[in-house]
Amino acid sequence: MSVSQDTRPDLDFCTELGQQLRVDSVVMSDRAGSGHPTSSMSAADLMAVLLCRHLHSDLNDNPHNDHLIFSKGHASPLYYAMLHAAGVIDEQELRTYRQFGSRLEGHPTPRIPPTDVATGSLAQGLPIGVGIALAGKELDRLPYRVWVLCGDSEMAEGSIWEAFEYAGWRGLDNLTAIIDVNRLGQTRETMLGHDLSAYADRATAFGWHPITVDGHDVAAIDRAYDEAEGVTGKPTVIIARTLKGKGVKETEDQPGKHGKPLEDATAAVQELGGFRDLEVEVQPPDTSAQPHRFPTKSADRPTWEVGADGSTREAYGAALAWLGMSREDIVALDGEVSNSTHSADFAEVEPARYFEMFIAEQQMAAAAVGIGTRGWTPFASTFGAFWARAYDFVRMAAVSRADLRLCGSHAGVSIGADGPSQMALEDMASLRAIHGSAVLHPSDANQVTGLLEEMADRSGITYLRVLRGKTTVRTPADEPVRIGGSRTLRENNGDDVTVIACGVTVDEAMDAAETLAKEDISARVIDCYSVKPLDEETVHRAAAETGAIVTVEDHRAEGGLGDAVLAVLADAPDRPPVIKLAVDIMPTSGTPEELMRAAGIDAEAIVDAARSVCAEQPARGERNSG
Amino acid sequence: MSVSQDTRPDLDFCTELGQQLRVDSVVMSDRAGSGHPTSSMSAADLMAVLLCRHLHSDLNDNPHNDHLIFSKGHASPLYYAMLHAAGVIDEQELRTYRQFGSRLEGHPTPRIPPTDVATGSLAQGLPIGVGIALAGKELDRLPYRVWVLCGDSEMAEGSIWEAFEYAGWRGLDNLTAIIDVNRLGQTRETMLGHDLSAYADRATAFGWHPITVDGHDVAAIDRAYDEAEGVTGKPTVIIARTLKGKGVKETEDQPGKHGKPLEDATAAVQELGGFRDLEVEVQPPDTSAQPHRFPTKSADRPTWEVGADGSTREAYGAALAWLGMSREDIVALDGEVSNSTHSADFAEVEPARYFEMFIAEQQMAAAAVGIGTRGWTPFASTFGAFWARAYDFVRMAAVSRADLRLCGSHAGVSIGADGPSQMALEDMASLRAIHGSAVLHPSDANQVTGLLEEMADRSGITYLRVLRGKTTVRTPADEPVRIGGSRTLRENNGDDVTVIACGVTVDEAMDAAETLAKEDISARVIDCYSVKPLDEETVHRAAAETGAIVTVEDHRAEGGLGDAVLAVLADAPDRPPVIKLAVDIMPTSGTPEELMRAAGIDAEAIVDAARSVCAEQPARGERNSG
Repeated sequence: MSVSQDTRPDLDFCTELGQQLRVDSVVMSDRAGSGHPTSSMSAADLMAVLLCRHLHSDLNDNPHNDHLIFSKGHASPLYYAMLHAAGVIDEQELRTYRQFGSRLEGHPTPRIPPTDVATGSLAQGLPIGVGIALAGKELDRLPYRVWVLCGDSEMAEGSIWEAFEYAGWRGLDNLTAIIDVNRLGQTRETMLGHDLSAYADRATAFGWHPITVDGHDVAAIDRAYDEAEGVTGKPTVIIARTLKGKGVKETEDQPGKHGKPLEDATAAVQELGGFRDLEVEVQPPDTSAQPHRFPTKSADRPTWEVGADGSTREAYGAALAWLGMSREDIVALDGEVSNSTHSADFAEVEPARYFEMFIAEQQMAAAAVGIGTRGWTPFASTFGAFWARAYDFVRMAAVSRADLRLCGSHAGVSIGADGPSQMALEDMASLRAIHGSAVLHPSDANQVTGLLEEMADRSGITYLRVLRGKTTVRTPADEPVRIGGSRTLRENNGDDVTVIACGVTVDEAMDAAETLAKEDISARVIDCYSVKPLDEETVHRAAAETGAIVTVEDHRAEGGLGDAVLAVLADAPDRPPVIKLAVDIMPTSGTPEELMRAAGIDAEAIVDAARSVCAEQPARGERNSG
Repeated sequence: MSVSQDTRPDLDFCTELGQQLRVDSVVMSDRAGSGHPTSSMSAADLMAVLLCRHLHSDLNDNPHNDHLIFSKGHASPLYYAMLHAAGVIDEQELRTYRQFGSRLEGHPTPRIPPTDVATGSLAQGLPIGVGIALAGKELDRLPYRVWVLCGDSEMAEGSIWEAFEYAGWRGLDNLTAIIDVNRLGQTRETMLGHDLSAYADRATAFGWHPITVDGHDVAAIDRAYDEAEGVTGKPTVIIARTLKGKGVKETEDQPGKHGKPLEDATAAVQELGGFRDLEVEVQPPDTSAQPHRFPTKSADRPTWEVGADGSTREAYGAALAWLGMSREDIVALDGEVSNSTHSADFAEVEPARYFEMFIAEQQMAAAAVGIGTRGWTPFASTFGAFWARAYDFVRMAAVSRADLRLCGSHAGVSIGADGPSQMALEDMASLRAIHGSAVLHPSDANQVTGLLEEMADRSGITYLRVLRGKTTVRTPADEPVRIGGSRTLRENNGDDVTVIACGVTVDEAMDAAETLAKEDISARVIDCYSVKPLDEETVHRAAAETGAIVTVEDHRAEGGLGDAVLAVLADAPDRPPVIKLAVDIMPTSGTPEELMRAAGIDAEAIVDAARSVCAEQPARGERNSG
């Protein structure tokens, strides 16, 4: 609500600032030779009023700051122009827009503070904002607000409605979405055009408070923000009727003007009233409250007896619960399968830091990213197969330099009767390709605990792949397990072949080694529980010391363990043949044993592969002296 | 509407059939030891009335049949029980549920006709149904209806709302969604519980006609279907209040009963009134109309002059337009970037077979799958990066044995100033891992035409990766280009090194080869435009004939061209070292040249790699005689 002694810039100033933001957007894009000035011009008045009168932030690294997310990341000229007006970016840096080396990329990233997350893949900013707002209410318990600028085109993405549904259900009244309804998409009018009431009806139906407004009337905009700040119990969406390219005849409300500089920037600047050099003193954050802290509890690190059977998903739940009791920063999220992933164990002991995200994996990933920006350490879990649903969010989380910890259960054909829709078979490939990621696939319960400890403190995207079924515990509870490590389970001088396995195939590899031993084929067995990074030293040594390598994984042949091994050995001057065993069929229902046999990844398949490759190879000694 | 002389089974029969479907669901799951009987029991009455009185189908391969999709694929016992009642599945086969070798998998797949698509990853059935309904209205122009059974838990997925938005906008009145609102998810109550009016408000806001109904009142259900059949201009959703596990005290409306057999199946069968052996004669399809045919036009196959510059995305548009004029089965879809992908060229010449899918990649992929089930040949395009948004849909399309043709533009860092959010860098890795897929990455415009012709007739998932920028046309227009092929651009006896490239790096490889030649390093250059399947013979020959291989790609190091080459050579008894050049940084904005240099994939990087690997290696002659 506006106060009686209002020290904030007045509405006339806002109007002028809006024009400045337009001018700067036009000039930046013109200089760069690319960019989205018209998508910036439509939202300039909305952002001018926000910056002058409603955002509370020192634009620095202050936990009390409001958050501002440009979900329509292509309006980066507007965003940078705002930061310029607020004194964060100087004139010289503004000139580097879209240049190599500049922090001012084509779409915002956290390289330019105080940007929380990268945007540019549409409809991710709002779900991430939901995560931050959730953290504000339930974790930090601070009065900061989250403001998200959305485009109208991105309203077609399902992830927007996951965000609407979840935020509405949670009643996140610290969240305000601002939809810049400029009517025009990249190639044509949006499905709803300027029908503000259609947007409002949808928002209402999803439990939000909608406010429709003329997005170029600064007084109306100001009243809308006032109203939004006063709404309790539900999030607010400001649905603003705007004109794309507003303020310049060449572009205003014109089709065919998306994503390109104006034809005549000089004339446009003149039409906009010329250059201005307004500076905005942004309202300071409310620092009255202190961030909430959760108490920790003493808890025993879960351990599993060697030789016992346990499932790595059970171990995930147990380790997560323990970690959560031991560390107040740990948060867990799950996609309504917490009794399958066993994240329910965490929910039981730390209900205040557990968030049920229902069946909405994109919103779950985004919430984890958002919560992570606030310094919490979230772990998010669902079936490994269903992380495919959020793949673009994980890709963008890497661009955001986010620390994201994902657990995917029910890996591979070994899940059995549920069939291929539930089997993670492409997860290692897709997640290994993410920049800076780690992909972990423990074979036993004790490994899970050790890896989870490392995950909690690791930067970047880390994926833990766990199994539905039970496997034999082989790793002693006190043995160090590390990202980038491996375990050699069998090794003898003069091994004929090395079998490299992970997860469920480790048991198969051990069975195979016993069978091979009876045939006088000596097999080394390595458990590469860290698929990325792979334990290069151990793999190189196996390549040097044994005559052949067989890799075996409950995953597709492309992009998994086998390819990781091949990549490590790629430039080795000499290297034995590598046989890759992986799932090369479309699986069906069946028992785990039937399906692993059909896929060619069981002990028998390993034995066959080892036998045939050894028969073809000269003994290692001969090879080395060849 | 019900007719005066109604030969359909009456409502009492429907009630009895509902009980039979429950009994069969309970017994099937009990025998299998797994499954989702309670999720079947809630929807049994809805499906009984549909099967007896509203579905029009000979349950065979008839183009006039209605389509029935179980979006809640875990209710497969109910689905198979329906097919049993309709005479498609005999008693003996019903007993094979979830067994290895059975067509009756844990979640339905097209292995059991007349199933159109695999479900089991939630919230995909409705978007696919939208695609089929779209085909019915706009392509086939036949009066078949599409019925989709949805669960209430899956309403949390954004893809459901993409489907609601698109179907509402298109006014698909041949589509009826049936939501089985049984209130209980896997672990807890859904966000909306039994609040039917909340669902109805959302449906209304998205342009649908909602009908709320007691899902266990067969007369009310029958009236709801009558009403749905009579609605014109908008799709209908029947929002049915049901009880999970209905009919058996142990399970009815009880938490903790998801996804498991009943504790006492015998007692449950008794409680349900015992076994029945009802047979349903399903209403025949309306065969009065004939499928619509589109006229073809004569058109010239697009060709590009060797030596000219052209972008492969421009070539995509030109080839697609030509293919569309030449073949009436070709359909194109785009995610509101058709002037970037150039699918706009198709829209211009064949507007009736072009569908603007707006920014909703999941719905776009699903629509392509749905349209494909009707025998059309859809191509769907967006930025390669944004196919990550639909990755789970592509994964499931493979389980559906769908023929899906995807084009992803703006590959790699070579797009330049727009920055990493727009760069496809993980697309080849993720899509190579899909079972049966092909991944094509042409380096010039003429290759695109040839590959597009092959794509049109290929089964399975095929991905075409195209570039934003221009490349030199090297492939003569009349030279055959094929999936699984490659082009050797430079080759001499005694080549020191082979450079294997694709897409934008082919130009770099050629430049590098020239530089290397000046240093007396002879480089073979291979353009592997087919990354999967790779031209194994050519790669093997290069490995045998040259002393080293350098692979170079504008893509991540994991799962792309380099790994494909390594995989082909994995079990070769002897093999030269392979140096993989790929994008190993988080790119920013910049010029294509700056970014390719920073990523280490330009000509200079290739020269450096080739030079250093050749210095380390003995000449090939020495190696071979070693």
